[in-house]
Amino acid sequence: MEEIEIGIGKRARIGYELRELSVIPSRRTRDIDDVDVSWQLEGYNFTFPIIASPMDSLVSPQSAVHYGELGGLAVLDLEGLWARHENADELLDRMSSMTTEQVNESLRGLYSVPVKKELMAELIKKVVDEGQVACGSVSPKNVASLAPAAAEAGLDILLIHGLVVSAEHICSSPDPLDLGRFVRELDIPVLIGGCASYQNALHLMRTGASGVLVGVGAGSSSRSKDFLGLGVPQATAIADVVGARTRHLEETGFYVQVIADGGMTTAGDMVKAIACGADAVMVGLPLAKAKEAPAKNWYFGSSFHHEYSPRGILLETKSDLPMREILFGPVKRNAGDTNLVGAMKRAMATCGAQTLKELQKTELVVGRQYNGK
Amino acid sequence: MEEIEIGIGKRARIGYELRELSVIPSRRTRDIDDVDVSWQLEGYNFTFPIIASPMDSLVSPQSAVHYGELGGLAVLDLEGLWARHENADELLDRMSSMTTEQVNESLRGLYSVPVKKELMAELIKKVVDEGQVACGSVSPKNVASLAPAAAEAGLDILLIHGLVVSAEHICSSPDPLDLGRFVRELDIPVLIGGCASYQNALHLMRTGASGVLVGVGAGSSSRSKDFLGLGVPQATAIADVVGARTRHLEETGFYVQVIADGGMTTAGDMVKAIACGADAVMVGLPLAKAKEAPAKNWYFGSSFHHEYSPRGILLETKSDLPMREILFGPVKRNAGDTNLVGAMKRAMATCGAQTLKELQKTELVVGRQYNGK
Amino acid sequence: MEEIEIGIGKRARIGYELRELSVIPSRRTRDIDDVDVSWQLEGYNFTFPIIASPMDSLVSPQSAVHYGELGGLAVLDLEGLWARHENADELLDRMSSMTTEQVNESLRGLYSVPVKKELMAELIKKVVDEGQVACGSVSPKNVASLAPAAAEAGLDILLIHGLVVSAEHICSSPDPLDLGRFVRELDIPVLIGGCASYQNALHLMRTGASGVLVGVGAGSSSRSKDFLGLGVPQATAIADVVGARTRHLEETGFYVQVIADGGMTTAGDMVKAIACGADAVMVGLPLAKAKEAPAKNWYFGSSFHHEYSPRGILLETKSDLPMREILFGPVKRNAGDTNLVGAMKRAMATCGAQTLKELQKTELVVGRQYNGK
Amino acid sequence: MEEIEIGIGKRARIGYELRELSVIPSRRTRDIDDVDVSWQLEGYNFTFPIIASPMDSLVSPQSAVHYGELGGLAVLDLEGLWARHENADELLDRMSSMTTEQVNESLRGLYSVPVKKELMAELIKKVVDEGQVACGSVSPKNVASLAPAAAEAGLDILLIHGLVVSAEHICSSPDPLDLGRFVRELDIPVLIGGCASYQNALHLMRTGASGVLVGVGAGSSSRSKDFLGLGVPQATAIADVVGARTRHLEETGFYVQVIADGGMTTAGDMVKAIACGADAVMVGLPLAKAKEAPAKNWYFGSSFHHEYSPRGILLETKSDLPMREILFGPVKRNAGDTNLVGAMKRAMATCGAQTLKELQKTELVVGRQYNGK
Repeated sequence: MEEIEIGIGKRARIGYELRELSVIPSRRTRDIDDVDVSWQLEGYNFTFPIIASPMDSLVSPQSAVHYGELGGLAVLDLEGLWARHENADELLDRMSSMTTEQVNESLRGLYSVPVKKELMAELIKKVVDEGQVACGSVSPKNVASLAPAAAEAGLDILLIHGLVVSAEHICSSPDPLDLGRFVRELDIPVLIGGCASYQNALHLMRTGASGVLVGVGAGSSSRSKDFLGLGVPQATAIADVVGARTRHLEETGFYVQVIADGGMTTAGDMVKAIACGADAVMVGLPLAKAKEAPAKNWYFGSSFHHEYSPRGILLETKSDLPMREILFGPVKRNAGDTNLVGAMKRAMATCGAQTLKELQKTELVVGRQYNGK
Repeated sequence: MEEIEIGIGKRARIGYELRELSVIPSRRTRDIDDVDVSWQLEGYNFTFPIIASPMDSLVSPQSAVHYGELGGLAVLDLEGLWARHENADELLDRMSSMTTEQVNESLRGLYSVPVKKELMAELIKKVVDEGQVACGSVSPKNVASLAPAAAEAGLDILLIHGLVVSAEHICSSPDPLDLGRFVRELDIPVLIGGCASYQNALHLMRTGASGVLVGVGAGSSSRSKDFLGLGVPQATAIADVVGARTRHLEETGFYVQVIADGGMTTAGDMVKAIACGADAVMVGLPLAKAKEAPAKNWYFGSSFHHEYSPRGILLETKSDLPMREILFGPVKRNAGDTNLVGAMKRAMATCGAQTLKELQKTELVVGRQYNGK
Repeated sequence: MEEIEIGIGKRARIGYELRELSVIPSRRTRDIDDVDVSWQLEGYNFTFPIIASPMDSLVSPQSAVHYGELGGLAVLDLEGLWARHENADELLDRMSSMTTEQVNESLRGLYSVPVKKELMAELIKKVVDEGQVACGSVSPKNVASLAPAAAEAGLDILLIHGLVVSAEHICSSPDPLDLGRFVRELDIPVLIGGCASYQNALHLMRTGASGVLVGVGAGSSSRSKDFLGLGVPQATAIADVVGARTRHLEETGFYVQVIADGGMTTAGDMVKAIACGADAVMVGLPLAKAKEAPAKNWYFGSSFHHEYSPRGILLETKSDLPMREILFGPVKRNAGDTNLVGAMKRAMATCGAQTLKELQKTELVVGRQYNGK
Repeated sequence: MEEIEIGIGKRARIGYELRELSVIPSRRTRDIDDVDVSWQLEGYNFTFPIIASPMDSLVSPQSAVHYGELGGLAVLDLEGLWARHENADELLDRMSSMTTEQVNESLRGLYSVPVKKELMAELIKKVVDEGQVACGSVSPKNVASLAPAAAEAGLDILLIHGLVVSAEHICSSPDPLDLGRFVRELDIPVLIGGCASYQNALHLMRTGASGVLVGVGAGSSSRSKDFLGLGVPQATAIADVVGARTRHLEETGFYVQVIADGGMTTAGDMVKAIACGADAVMVGLPLAKAKEAPAKNWYFGSSFHHEYSPRGILLETKSDLPMREILFGPVKRNAGDTNLVGAMKRAMATCGAQTLKELQKTELVVGRQYNGK
């Protein structure tokens, strides 16, 4: 671990962001048609490793089904608007003509209505009924109360999702959640995160989780670095968690999926996350340009409905591209925001990696001027 | 100490700013309700460790009392406008409709009127009479003449405050101040600063000071780095002074408070200062948005009334939030400028620190891209 | 090789961009009239080492001849518009009054027309007939089909040109190109690139190439770093390839030309590339300001006609300077965009280098603030 | 010497700019009235160490005399407008109403008129006659022809001034200048520069020069880093030359003045240059705001009349402050552009340095965020 001395009384790690890195093209190249970007999670197969983040502005029951049909995995927010309101689609539709201030206020009101288990179950069933993998997220605080009902409703994969989730939550209440016991007793695979350090990841892996999400404050709508002072530069966080995965694999023989979460906007960012050792990536903003996104032209994350400060922020976006075009092209403009899967394949072909496993082993260079600028 | 060679004939330390750092979330998390941010100074108890800086644009007798009632410590400028003018409140009020140029000129005139000991005493009594802790600052130059009268008027804590204060001031005048003797003979606790190096801090601690302020040119209204070439990046300054505190503690058994002073605008900045080893923080700008601030919409520091160049600068601000909201929320907008104490608690809960002492021990990461940008 | 640890599970090289470097003036200076910037490639002599990049927006048959008459080497794109359309000049002329969107669309249409070998041969002959060196580029994919015909049409030098070209292209097709055998059997000198690593360059050199192009994603119109995550900071790429050249020279006694390709806009950039060890530079944008450039006011690269995403981007430029003035002055304005050869000589005179070989040995300094800004 | 590996085939020094540095306030402070910033050069005494750069836009015979009366040293450009035109003042006056383009063109015309020795002599005499120290600069090319006449006209100190001046100028002409012999035979003190490396400085010192100027491309109007690729970050250049001075002192017992030249705009920059080991600084832009500057509102350097590319550039400025106010205050606005000498004293007092010699020994810190921004 690289360390510096901040001053006489304190030391610090050195951390790197994905944008500081590039993949080094090596002595081999490949045909793009021979490149395979498929990804497996606990027996489920996906044709590409880009997960749609559990954000009400991105994943509705309809858009989740569509994303699944395209070959990917979209995560439902089980505490989101569809779990609170029967007419969530309509409520989001109305926002398309609102001002930023109005959307802010409207969302605060909508999220103050409590989650209803029946609505949550319906949300899950809408995806199950269409034959797609139903994956949904809940916060650590509500996982004990919501997860069993979600599993019963047919949830395939559970994501326990917070800014930072630890296996060792200390509280003065008489009966704290034993995360390890909970994960082992639930009979569906569990993903947990975010986390951003070797120790935290290792303890999360030891709960029996199928995968961990890496990233604290890395997302475009997050302000935890600024407002809370918390976070780890994302490339370093991924590499540290990959280190924990290796140790866990040596100890248990079980390979835990490492999913980079947040802040990636181009295929290049995703390629670099995987080259740091991640198995898949979870993204929001790059997919929110899809016309299938339920909150047309608005982008906000699940932190928006948490009670604590800082809430995430609200961004304006433009939701006018078919999701299929975002993922597979064709490329009609040169903004790098379409054909994410194709560009990922192109990058792998150019650096000679046939599979995501090979991409994980490519060499990286860290520049002091990011992306040559 | 990390050093580089600038060139063949000169070496330099390496320094880090708070904004380059983040706190690493570790393997433990806590309930926010279990977090305690209280801070003690020489028997006085404060419910949070954020000190209001001695600036006429921020601390009036009224706002000091109000800040104390909210649980914090506000420092009066004993050489400020209330010590020079009977109608200081009115004089500041008038500025709300002035232009920048007019305020600059007006302030220069108001600060050219000498300090009157009776007015200074009245200023102190206004705080004492309301039952709050009276803390006031004087410059090193005037401390011998003003401090005894201030103590007599009921001052509880004295801050000796300059750009840099040293225990070894060399001058050709026949009778220079012996700071150590002065501090020992005064019968109220003394804080001293700014300082920014191990040696300077150690010598200040040896005078018997209860606390030292860390920061030279770190404040938002300061230009000493640009105009004088002086300063130390603040995270390094804090860590160096914390190193001096450790040595002083080993030598004497006396724990000196380390107070980070200047340049912090979000709870995240304050969390990082404490994670570097500080016990408390002194801030101006983030509190100047309070509607209780006497200089509505203007922000200027005590360096404004010093005779030397560069004076600090004048900033426009917007003073429209209740101080209570700045400190404790609720969060109505997402600018990170309200609920500073709540956000501090949230950060500590997320990284598993129950007290400020535990926060001082958390791990840090230094990024080459600051705050991920 | 300098390396850092990104995190526990991954390491990375450190890379430097040309803009981070400066040449250190040493204890000798020279008269500018004694400086010689001539460059030799396989028996061809050029009076300066600046190659015009194979871009349809820069190199037409006419501009190639003119550039040769001025003493330089311009590379034809053998899969460009002149190889696809009889009236390429006219087609480009029409774009001068189009909008960006229209040019984008028009180019996409024009490049969808297939290359015709007869037109390619004509393109080559136009340069040969004027007595200039005919150098032309083809992509790796089409080299086997196009290069023999090009050689037959009189091509003097072949450039095999792609984003990354490797000596080991793996594909599942039954009969992949054996690059080494191909180069040895072709009876004209071959340049190959881009490449950006020691190993790749060494393998390309072992094919028998006369020169390799260094640079992946370094060009002004390239987006491969952003969109694909691929690339190596250019100064590091050059120095690594120069290292491979030294090894190849030791192994074989054959000196391979190292040509820095992309991203250089001033004579200073070119001087620094050569000071890193390059023999010559290939540039586009700085020459595209020539009124001889066929695509008046538009700048786009050969990646524009490749099928993959990201295509290069389209830049607006202003094509109003005589090429002679760009190369040799006089300097009428102070933008640094004219007299590139003169400025190169001036830089060499000032640091005491008489020839390009001596410039390759000058000392460099890397600054943390680029170009002092 | 700190070095990095750019890539396998090339290494580089690491360099630092002044703006990356700050002076660390230490454990001593001083009264500002006890601070002494006087500077001596070969028996001449100056009350402050800020030299006015030989630029026609700054130093006229009148402004040189005025600057001398204020206690400083101004350098005449002996190849400037006053040495070419009888009515130089009038010619510059006319420019106050011209556009940038017109001034550029006008200056090119004015500098194409050859230098006349009689006018040069008159220029010198105007300063001598007023009892001030006459210091004048000539370019290396013309020094042999102009310097004797200048000495005869009463010149007190000669500056041999170019972008880079070396003691070993190699040229194919039959009779190159032997700089060492020339300096020894001239009977007035000689300053030489710019230079930016240990070796170059050492050889210049061995010619017998009284002082060397440090700085290549550091000035505000210079473009040599951008356009020629030449230069050394200024703090590193100063420290390297200071290293050469120490060696020269050990070898010969002769202390050569090190004068930092270019790019400093605030007192803070000047303080840092001296803290790196310089004895004095030579500046242009900060003094060009003086209403005594002959080229009202325009700023350009001596490189403007050199024949080579790149010429320096032309900047607009505002020349409305009395030179006395720029140097000694009072401070009427907070831009840091007045009271340069006072601010220098304030900085020294604050870090406990009584003399420039003590300032040379203060400790420095290098920040990764410059000036805290």
